[in-house]
Amino acid sequence: MKLGFIGIGLMGAGVVRNLIKAGHEVTVWDRFEEPAAEMVTAGAKLARTPEEATQHGIVFSMLAHDDAIQSTLIDPGWLDKSKKPLVHVNLSTISVKYARELTDLHAAAGIAYVASPVFGRPDSAAAGTLNLIVGGPDSAITPLLPALEAFSGKVYRVGSEPFQANLVKIAGNMMIASAIESMAEAAALGAAHGVDGSMMLDIYLEALFPSPVYRGYSAFIRRRDYEPVGFKLPLGLKDVRLALEAGEHAHVPLPVAGVVRDSLIQAIANGYGEKDWSSLAETSFIRAGLAKKA
Amino acid sequence: MKLGFIGIGLMGAGVVRNLIKAGHEVTVWDRFEEPAAEMVTAGAKLARTPEEATQHGIVFSMLAHDDAIQSTLIDPGWLDKSKKPLVHVNLSTISVKYARELTDLHAAAGIAYVASPVFGRPDSAAAGTLNLIVGGPDSAITPLLPALEAFSGKVYRVGSEPFQANLVKIAGNMMIASAIESMAEAAALGAAHGVDGSMMLDIYLEALFPSPVYRGYSAFIRRRDYEPVGFKLPLGLKDVRLALEAGEHAHVPLPVAGVVRDSLIQAIANGYGEKDWSSLAETSFIRAGLAKKA
Amino acid sequence: MKLGFIGIGLMGAGVVRNLIKAGHEVTVWDRFEEPAAEMVTAGAKLARTPEEATQHGIVFSMLAHDDAIQSTLIDPGWLDKSKKPLVHVNLSTISVKYARELTDLHAAAGIAYVASPVFGRPDSAAAGTLNLIVGGPDSAITPLLPALEAFSGKVYRVGSEPFQANLVKIAGNMMIASAIESMAEAAALGAAHGVDGSMMLDIYLEALFPSPVYRGYSAFIRRRDYEPVGFKLPLGLKDVRLALEAGEHAHVPLPVAGVVRDSLIQAIANGYGEKDWSSLAETSFIRAGLAKKA
Amino acid sequence: MKLGFIGIGLMGAGVVRNLIKAGHEVTVWDRFEEPAAEMVTAGAKLARTPEEATQHGIVFSMLAHDDAIQSTLIDPGWLDKSKKPLVHVNLSTISVKYARELTDLHAAAGIAYVASPVFGRPDSAAAGTLNLIVGGPDSAITPLLPALEAFSGKVYRVGSEPFQANLVKIAGNMMIASAIESMAEAAALGAAHGVDGSMMLDIYLEALFPSPVYRGYSAFIRRRDYEPVGFKLPLGLKDVRLALEAGEHAHVPLPVAGVVRDSLIQAIANGYGEKDWSSLAETSFIRAGLAKKA
Repeated sequence: MKLGFIGIGLMGAGVVRNLIKAGHEVTVWDRFEEPAAEMVTAGAKLARTPEEATQHGIVFSMLAHDDAIQSTLIDPGWLDKSKKPLVHVNLSTISVKYARELTDLHAAAGIAYVASPVFGRPDSAAAGTLNLIVGGPDSAITPLLPALEAFSGKVYRVGSEPFQANLVKIAGNMMIASAIESMAEAAALGAAHGVDGSMMLDIYLEALFPSPVYRGYSAFIRRRDYEPVGFKLPLGLKDVRLALEAGEHAHVPLPVAGVVRDSLIQAIANGYGEKDWSSLAETSFIRAGLAKKA
Repeated sequence: MKLGFIGIGLMGAGVVRNLIKAGHEVTVWDRFEEPAAEMVTAGAKLARTPEEATQHGIVFSMLAHDDAIQSTLIDPGWLDKSKKPLVHVNLSTISVKYARELTDLHAAAGIAYVASPVFGRPDSAAAGTLNLIVGGPDSAITPLLPALEAFSGKVYRVGSEPFQANLVKIAGNMMIASAIESMAEAAALGAAHGVDGSMMLDIYLEALFPSPVYRGYSAFIRRRDYEPVGFKLPLGLKDVRLALEAGEHAHVPLPVAGVVRDSLIQAIANGYGEKDWSSLAETSFIRAGLAKKA
Repeated sequence: MKLGFIGIGLMGAGVVRNLIKAGHEVTVWDRFEEPAAEMVTAGAKLARTPEEATQHGIVFSMLAHDDAIQSTLIDPGWLDKSKKPLVHVNLSTISVKYARELTDLHAAAGIAYVASPVFGRPDSAAAGTLNLIVGGPDSAITPLLPALEAFSGKVYRVGSEPFQANLVKIAGNMMIASAIESMAEAAALGAAHGVDGSMMLDIYLEALFPSPVYRGYSAFIRRRDYEPVGFKLPLGLKDVRLALEAGEHAHVPLPVAGVVRDSLIQAIANGYGEKDWSSLAETSFIRAGLAKKA
Repeated sequence: MKLGFIGIGLMGAGVVRNLIKAGHEVTVWDRFEEPAAEMVTAGAKLARTPEEATQHGIVFSMLAHDDAIQSTLIDPGWLDKSKKPLVHVNLSTISVKYARELTDLHAAAGIAYVASPVFGRPDSAAAGTLNLIVGGPDSAITPLLPALEAFSGKVYRVGSEPFQANLVKIAGNMMIASAIESMAEAAALGAAHGVDGSMMLDIYLEALFPSPVYRGYSAFIRRRDYEPVGFKLPLGLKDVRLALEAGEHAHVPLPVAGVVRDSLIQAIANGYGEKDWSSLAETSFIRAGLAKKA
């Protein structure tokens, strides 16, 4: 298929490479020259504007957050300037509220809108094994499946409303953060009693929670070193905040998400703002007077 | 091997059956006649007193909590009356504080003491696939391995201090409860937004957390029916309290455990005191005004 | 003095009446006809547009939240259309973030900007006993004192930056909400033990916390009836959220504010969305299975 | 009146001095010689054993916690050895559970039992202005009033069950700790935004919470120095734990108490274990990366 792709970050680059590898023709745009140029080297074509990326009637976007979409696409009138008919597949993790707004704006502009946030870190994007959570009308999604499958391990379809996919994604990130917090509380409890935290996490991983999330994040906590950065802490905080906002909007208290939010904030206040979001684990140690010496 | 077994509850019965099946000779005692009689039917011998169960120099015990051990064994002078030399393997989930006390009391009585709390529910006990967390001196544990392996999927040795095994067990249960809470918060968030909670939990189970704990407990939450009861809610509350107490003792705040404690208490206050502890999930729905109609 | 006043709600009406009573000439504007007409009956003059209210060089505004100011004044170009020189005294409770934005926008438009959020409910506004928290340049504030004192019990000056006043106000509301939650937890604990909650609150009020906030709100909790509505629950939730946002922005976890937020949300989910915000107290009773029968 | 007094700590000493000053004849006992000797210097008589302090048929006790009473009085058989008839007025802050046990034990021994925990710090004890929360049978309490009034500002009678007084006391301490936490969260929020925390606390004290508790504890937080120690932090943690236990027993979640508990634990973990319990406030600053330099 011929398609456009807007937003070449750590994640987007992996997706584009897999699309190209699967034989799709991808026209890329990014606000910075270098990432786009790298994609061209990898076989993509270059769009000079975000609307040029819509020329083939299918465009993917993967931007960092609500504001990036608003300022890059919506405010400059991209919806109007885009070629029609158009299907826009938004891979970004955005708020439920903004997902609803975008759905309305696309409908008004006569553009089919599909939300497809992903589970997976940059290594999964590179490997083409992302899990896709897809929400939107079947008529728009079904023809896209060959493209979606090119960079995903599995495609989950959650309903005809795009915001539903965003909700599932946000709640999933909330659960991942809760799992990290939970491992960290256990490890701090062990450490304070002279029990090796690393061994504890191995036991829990093997006996209770053998799964990618526990495996990946327990490795960070075991080392108490939160690099390489797959997902920067402030982005994690953003996602937990989105869950809390979605909860507030629908009158759902989420107390564990509230605790995790505080752990993330405390980690930033203590110098972990540039680390992987799993460094929220350090807050458990700081609370117990077991902070890592810098 | 010839060994004694004290405490034939839902869990103990499964363990004893597997010991017998593996060819061990088991002499059982329980304060109630019926459970002991069932074991005799299954091939065990009957001890008329708890001290008679120590006649072969090895005795296992599996009682509900600190108080049960204190009132059944310690207060009546069992340590003194027991046959020596003796190795006592305590499979119960008890507090870290009481584990330390028992270690001292056994040492004073000249009895080798091993803590071996288990991960697993009655079905794992029946299947002989419990995970054992073992703490105590190697000299006592190593000869026991044939017996331990008769009813376990895996034996984890965590150190020479018995209390360390109890800590690992308690922190693990705290993590399980946190995982249940986390699934419930996500499901309530979905429900309030019209997203099918069952589908959400399936996605998380497959894409993020494919593991026995998430599999087993998400099934309860999906049905919003918390039977059959594998682990009664007040026992779960006890274990989370033990984690909080161990945290307080060593100056480790455990805020998620605090939230989970409140969810468990609220579930009891709302009528789930006789259900499986996964019914703490209902608290997330109650908070959101989505309580199940009775 | 001659001055304008924008926003005649429950609070604004009381302020305007006191300004008139003190001999000031007040020109009012409200987006609804009726409240403005009532003020005219009370002796005010009527402005047909919000910019007409700026004709005397001093204008007060008291609107419900950030969005109301943005949509009523900022978006329609009020800053540009206003008569200059102008001092704008904003009595609204707004976010710290928006306070900073407004400060910049006013500076760019050549308007002196003063923030003066208030502590007090409609009865204090009517009585002219509001507590004013004032932030902004002395040169702007000092000449206004006669007007400010006309409707306040006390004027607190907290610094030259307007946002500082908003922060003090928001944090104060967070403390009031925490005090309500704390009374409610104690009362629920008493009720569950058969101790009369009303008597308990009387003791605490007299022996520990004799003060307007505890007096006023304990009365609601004692009756478990949350009318008349002085401050509607969703507005209280907004203020607690503003505190949490200000905390997140400056990396300050506020765990009690997080709990209170959940209590407020749970109260809405359980039908208290139109009641006084002190109905967050009902959440303590709901948690304990002691919900009031409707 | 002639009466005995057991337990001469910081608080007990003040009470005894006021009893003597009011003309009562007090026979004191303490497990340490020095505090008792000081009381003798002040005019008291010396009892050589705790049972000797019961010789006049009325005995007060003021011990640190449940365990102290159990080991000092109950385990050594004091109830049996005491002179009968006897009224025992227990001024200690003890758990609700233990209060019920003591009530039963006294009934079995034929001793009238009155609980009279106090609100107030050592300075109030010295000044004779303690607030007394009294629970027990009127027939026992009424004759004691002259003695009770000798050291109290006010006597609150809360019911015929002693445990009710203990519950009211414990819940009150929970509320005091919540107020401290709330002030600390506000002050940390201010500090992080460059607003003077001391000024903020003054405003709140004057405009919202003019009361002894806010006055006394805001002074500690303003200085960020938690001496002199009126009530040591671990005792405060004990009381909050007692509230949580009473809540758990009656199925009442107390989430703010849970947060305060964590703040107290974190303060201990960070070196404040010997300071006044208001040093729980430092946890708010630590969370925000604003810890005081040692």
